[in-house]
Amino acid sequence: MRAMAKAPILTPRADDFPRWYQDLINKAELADNGPVRGTMVIRPYGYGLWERMQQEMDARIKEAGAQNAYFPLFIPQSYLTREAEHVEGFAPELAVVTHGGGKELEEPVVVRPTSETIVNEYFSKWVQSYRDLPLLINQWANVVRWEMRPRVFLRTTEFLWQEGHTAHATYEEARDYAAYIHEKVYADFMVNVLGIDVVLGRKTPKERFAGAVNTLTLEGMMGDGKALQMGTSHELGTNFAKAFGTEYLSKDGKQELVWQTSWGSSTRMVGGLIMSHGDDNGLRVPPRLAPVQAVVLAIKGDDAVLAKVRELGDRLRAAGIRVQVDDRTDTPFGRRAVDWELKGVPVRIEVGPRDLENGTAMLARRIPGGKEPVALDALAGLLPAILEEDQAQLLRESRERRESRTSDVSTVAEAADVAAAGGWARIPWSVLGEAGEAELAEKSVTVRCLVAEDGSVPRSDDEAGALAIVARAY
Amino acid sequence: MRAMAKAPILTPRADDFPRWYQDLINKAELADNGPVRGTMVIRPYGYGLWERMQQEMDARIKEAGAQNAYFPLFIPQSYLTREAEHVEGFAPELAVVTHGGGKELEEPVVVRPTSETIVNEYFSKWVQSYRDLPLLINQWANVVRWEMRPRVFLRTTEFLWQEGHTAHATYEEARDYAAYIHEKVYADFMVNVLGIDVVLGRKTPKERFAGAVNTLTLEGMMGDGKALQMGTSHELGTNFAKAFGTEYLSKDGKQELVWQTSWGSSTRMVGGLIMSHGDDNGLRVPPRLAPVQAVVLAIKGDDAVLAKVRELGDRLRAAGIRVQVDDRTDTPFGRRAVDWELKGVPVRIEVGPRDLENGTAMLARRIPGGKEPVALDALAGLLPAILEEDQAQLLRESRERRESRTSDVSTVAEAADVAAAGGWARIPWSVLGEAGEAELAEKSVTVRCLVAEDGSVPRSDDEAGALAIVARAY
Repeated sequence: MRAMAKAPILTPRADDFPRWYQDLINKAELADNGPVRGTMVIRPYGYGLWERMQQEMDARIKEAGAQNAYFPLFIPQSYLTREAEHVEGFAPELAVVTHGGGKELEEPVVVRPTSETIVNEYFSKWVQSYRDLPLLINQWANVVRWEMRPRVFLRTTEFLWQEGHTAHATYEEARDYAAYIHEKVYADFMVNVLGIDVVLGRKTPKERFAGAVNTLTLEGMMGDGKALQMGTSHELGTNFAKAFGTEYLSKDGKQELVWQTSWGSSTRMVGGLIMSHGDDNGLRVPPRLAPVQAVVLAIKGDDAVLAKVRELGDRLRAAGIRVQVDDRTDTPFGRRAVDWELKGVPVRIEVGPRDLENGTAMLARRIPGGKEPVALDALAGLLPAILEEDQAQLLRESRERRESRTSDVSTVAEAADVAAAGGWARIPWSVLGEAGEAELAEKSVTVRCLVAEDGSVPRSDDEAGALAIVARAY
Repeated sequence: MRAMAKAPILTPRADDFPRWYQDLINKAELADNGPVRGTMVIRPYGYGLWERMQQEMDARIKEAGAQNAYFPLFIPQSYLTREAEHVEGFAPELAVVTHGGGKELEEPVVVRPTSETIVNEYFSKWVQSYRDLPLLINQWANVVRWEMRPRVFLRTTEFLWQEGHTAHATYEEARDYAAYIHEKVYADFMVNVLGIDVVLGRKTPKERFAGAVNTLTLEGMMGDGKALQMGTSHELGTNFAKAFGTEYLSKDGKQELVWQTSWGSSTRMVGGLIMSHGDDNGLRVPPRLAPVQAVVLAIKGDDAVLAKVRELGDRLRAAGIRVQVDDRTDTPFGRRAVDWELKGVPVRIEVGPRDLENGTAMLARRIPGGKEPVALDALAGLLPAILEEDQAQLLRESRERRESRTSDVSTVAEAADVAAAGGWARIPWSVLGEAGEAELAEKSVTVRCLVAEDGSVPRSDDEAGALAIVARAY
């Protein structure tokens, strides 16, 4: 048989990034398109990534003092209309239930696109006095926003998310809480677990959440230089409190409106993970997130090998590593190895009869690449440091990409050119302004966020010296 | 001030059980009714119970080899009609979305009432060969069944649940897996964590899930002697496989239909918990489930007391106990104590200035009742055994109730009388039969399940000697 150049398993990123993304999702069995346009089926391996995101986020959310609760999927249409900007923002995306139990409904109900309105209906009942504040609630749920140009994980008609909703006695408390979530929940998770070097910034008024007075955002640079909004934390001021009468009796005996926040992150993060860390061979999952950090593969099905991979699996699990044993030896070894490569499991430990004789296994590392024999007894001791090294490498690559592909510019035209070439432009907001923002919008380029000169988050829309980060975005 | 008989906080169970149930849910802040009829808002303490149920169930489901995934909320109406019995069962309860994104949809979509149809659409793509079997999937999700007579947690238009869906190569494997879930996931959780002495049985053909060939059920007796179906596990035979063409290539190279199961348990279990263990003072949460096993209360707000309750909280947490510290001393102590009583936290540890002097705390036990001083240093050592004792007591009470309120009868009329009086009747299925079942239905009495003479689960609809458990039910 002649040696042939193997056809690539995925469309190379350089050829067609969107197609590479879709190929990877199919081949790594992360998700399928649903039958209703824009919906998705999250397959077990993709859902495993989401479950790990949930665990890590949920711990941070609870650490921030919020408690989980659940509000109904169905919201009376009339609720949406109470906050004017909010309904304007969401009306075009609503799914409406008109029939239930075989009858036409008297009032149609919308499937929640987000829950600020229904949450406030209940906050206004639960909050009576200053003693009931702050009220810190989070919900894990599905939401529906009818999507005209769907793309799996990134923009889907139905997606899974967490949405936090809080009420506070003062403006300052609400502002600080929104900032706390932004930094200590979202940024901490995205940087230290997802390994994505997100930029923390403030949205321009045009890009704000419908009904918010301030939106804080986390923007990640994807492999093609486009931006992805990975999460947002909003100060809602008293907008929803006014619309729903959410008031409390202060220590001074006065009725006061509560100050609120809301904040969300979703299955979109799975898309961000793929586009940040994936390469032409598939996904690369950061070890701290990975549902499977190491897979132990039996190369062939002889009894000694099977016994050894199972024993090794148990030993690594005992060392605190998330391990899967792959003993499906009726499937060719090469196909399974490629499959784990596609799925991006950080470490592959391959054990065959010859390895047993030598007391070694082949250790294949997905993130730096490469393969070398390692003594079986040494594995449990070596892996923790290897996994932390790999974690650091992904974050470093993410940071280097962002730094090398971000340019400082001084005109709107230059900003547009940088964005069109697949990079981010940094331009003084005083130069760009809302007029420049509108001009960029015509070229499908957006202001992702404003950052202060020192890299911190601006405290107002017109903070002196603020820089706009400008890019194409998903 | 004269001593007054205190008005009861809850309507006593003996006066009006349904009203007691609703009172408890309100006062213990478990849930509120949602704005759309039949929906509910699950408040943090109620959701905390559900989260613990999810954790315990999820671990058992994963132990059973199933992986979590997520299928869309929206199902094309046409899918539902492919399995005839299934659509007949669910059509009257569907919520239908007719408009999305501001337009009328070409094909209306239903909000999932359960996911067998959409799951099979994908199983038919994913399953190709015998190597892909068994395929064991679980999903945590919300579902909607339009409810005419809603009751919080028990029958709600939207509820939260897990639904398992599996495909197997043979009838025997599918049958055994449904039975495994029934016993090792559901019964193990309900008996050993919820502390409810459920009866495991087989549904009669009339009570089967729409589309199933066999439904296994777990029935709990509530405080008023009525039955609650706590979970079901179905053998689907090849019904959905035929409807969706879910076939695999066997080892012999033949195309064969897969054999399937599905199984579900829901937030209804929270209702079952309340009605099984609640008393006239509120809920009593079994310690193995309890999100808060022990609450440490500061009676007054002096610094030494506050320091001590926090230190004690840390010490108990370190001993592996789920603890909450209640240092909200701006709320009267008596009110907080009543509140924790309502919420059913198993152990209350009350610390005031006098206790500090003595080096003791008052230990109040919700489940057996009673209160006694205990040396502060002894608490961490004592609690684990106390919590296990309380857990055992709840299960024992549940068993004693079921045994004392179940009667063996030999005529349909007697069975109806027992059920009407708030008990369960056991009657030979050969005596009752489908005619007797229809007769009972007119009196709102149902056959909850069939059990074999030795208490095991009958393997067929007409197993000799099978007994019918007959009761009124929620």
